Amino acid sequence: MEQTGRVTIEEAAALLGGADQILILTHKRTDGDTCGSAAGLCLCLRAMGKRAYVQKNSSSSKRFIAMMEPYLPPEGFEPGFIVTVDVADRELLPEDAEIYRTRPIQLAVDHHGSHRDYAEHTLVDAHAAAAGEIILRLMDRLGVPLDRDIADALYIAISTDTGCFRYSNTTADTLRSAARCYEAGADAASANKVFFETKSSARIRMESYLYGHMRLSDDGRLFLILIPRSAIDAIGATPEDMENLSSIGITIEGVEMALTMVENKEGGFRMSARTCGGVDASAFCALYGGGGHAAAAGCTVGDGDADQLAARVWKAAEEYLSLVKA
Amino acid sequence: MEQTGRVTIEEAAALLGGADQILILTHKRTDGDTCGSAAGLCLCLRAMGKRAYVQKNSSSSKRFIAMMEPYLPPEGFEPGFIVTVDVADRELLPEDAEIYRTRPIQLAVDHHGSHRDYAEHTLVDAHAAAAGEIILRLMDRLGVPLDRDIADALYIAISTDTGCFRYSNTTADTLRSAARCYEAGADAASANKVFFETKSSARIRMESYLYGHMRLSDDGRLFLILIPRSAIDAIGATPEDMENLSSIGITIEGVEMALTMVENKEGGFRMSARTCGGVDASAFCALYGGGGHAAAAGCTVGDGDADQLAARVWKAAEEYLSLVKA
Repeated sequence: MEQTGRVTIEEAAALLGGADQILILTHKRTDGDTCGSAAGLCLCLRAMGKRAYVQKNSSSSKRFIAMMEPYLPPEGFEPGFIVTVDVADRELLPEDAEIYRTRPIQLAVDHHGSHRDYAEHTLVDAHAAAAGEIILRLMDRLGVPLDRDIADALYIAISTDTGCFRYSNTTADTLRSAARCYEAGADAASANKVFFETKSSARIRMESYLYGHMRLSDDGRLFLILIPRSAIDAIGATPEDMENLSSIGITIEGVEMALTMVENKEGGFRMSARTCGGVDASAFCALYGGGGHAAAAGCTVGDGDADQLAARVWKAAEEYLSLVKA
Repeated sequence: MEQTGRVTIEEAAALLGGADQILILTHKRTDGDTCGSAAGLCLCLRAMGKRAYVQKNSSSSKRFIAMMEPYLPPEGFEPGFIVTVDVADRELLPEDAEIYRTRPIQLAVDHHGSHRDYAEHTLVDAHAAAAGEIILRLMDRLGVPLDRDIADALYIAISTDTGCFRYSNTTADTLRSAARCYEAGADAASANKVFFETKSSARIRMESYLYGHMRLSDDGRLFLILIPRSAIDAIGATPEDMENLSSIGITIEGVEMALTMVENKEGGFRMSARTCGGVDASAFCALYGGGGHAAAAGCTVGDGDADQLAARVWKAAEEYLSLVKA
């Protein structure tokens, strides 16, 4: 067990089995997977009679701060074993866990193919749709039964990272893991309502703004929306309200390239490109020094008059699409 | 096997096993479940060496008409065994299957608790989220392996009837059935894109209209939108574009009662009520002679000036909500 580097699920389970005074770290700007995995793992370790807590994470939204409340360490807790969940890179640790950007971390459990090995032991399964799936497997190895509370936490982890099983990262294992959460009594209906069927009124106004100001090409293949800071401020949209806004354009029938430009607080625009039908988002964003994946990429486009900027990007995108068509 | 009435899954499998020249009927205004179940059952029966077809259904949308094309019976096909899938009531058969509203139907496979026994043999499981789940179980009894084509059909059946596993009818069995479809090679990513991540541009304009014209109460609990026929015509929205429009209001954070009033072609308004937080939609709609479930109900509200009508409904709803609060 003195080995460092990548470990198997059995080895990771053995490490956790031998550990105590455990502190679990989540990534900054938390999501359902990092929080659900942390809560699930924490409950699993406590069920084994260990002391386990989840480090405070002030970068979370209110919803997740409330969710993680029961797992915060008491004043003066001295951890003996540090484990990260769903944290692809040390740099992604929140400010509350800043000291662990340089101190040793005993175990990292993650599902990102891009995971940068920073821990003494690393358990990565890039085929898992969510870190929560790996936590469930660890629990099985540790012999801890899936109770209702753990199932609630892991259901949130697994469902949110797959858009409620809509995204293409979903696998048969994902669905079977979720089925086990259902059987253990997870309140999936409430979780689905909160995470997939609730929009803030600011979010509604932002979508309304998007629909009212979007530009669609005559052939329907190109979508562009530019959202100035003034609109965001007028609506009072939080970063949470702006989440996944860039995925709306590509849902419009016929659209093959959807460009969403959001003005940064400090000026300039963050542009997200979503594509389908063989159009390469990454190659288009590379024109602006950005990158990403074939279907989802991003870049920053400079300052200047917003309308002129949008017009230039529109022209470049039209030309790019005409090349793809040819 | 001479028994009539409700049958077990084994008895239904035995009936199908002994049948040939089979015609499968779907319900009018088809959805993914009736079409996917019919296609899946048809392929299953063909895999057993039987002649099986799915009756034409002109009430389908273009998408489903294309999907069901490979299963249409040839000219002059004389069925010897009629089976319905996902058809709760004979009255729900489409015009193309009108003759079966009076002729004998040998078997009905359904998952509606409200199923009205019209067939000689009836297999109903009201706990199944989709008829497609029952078809999969029948296949298992019949010993037919789940191949990719059948998995594609059944994945569509199961996913669409559960809003991609978001709705509260989803169970562990639903998720496990979907997992088996994944394993058999179903193209879930494509199905999810088509059914859950594509909106027509008319649909986008309709949602935009809704956001632009909705009324929210000061306390945020009441939502009302009235959509006049003139707006539907101006947008060019088809009945498909109007589907589930009534579920948008209730997704707004804080809304406990969402009323969606759509003007009928022949005048008057169809009102849908969606509620949460203990507000009874059915009781409210009963005030207008309608009904339904606690969280989703409907009614027809009379003619007259649209604005005055909306104002009257608004006032009644506010009063109703204040009673619930009290």
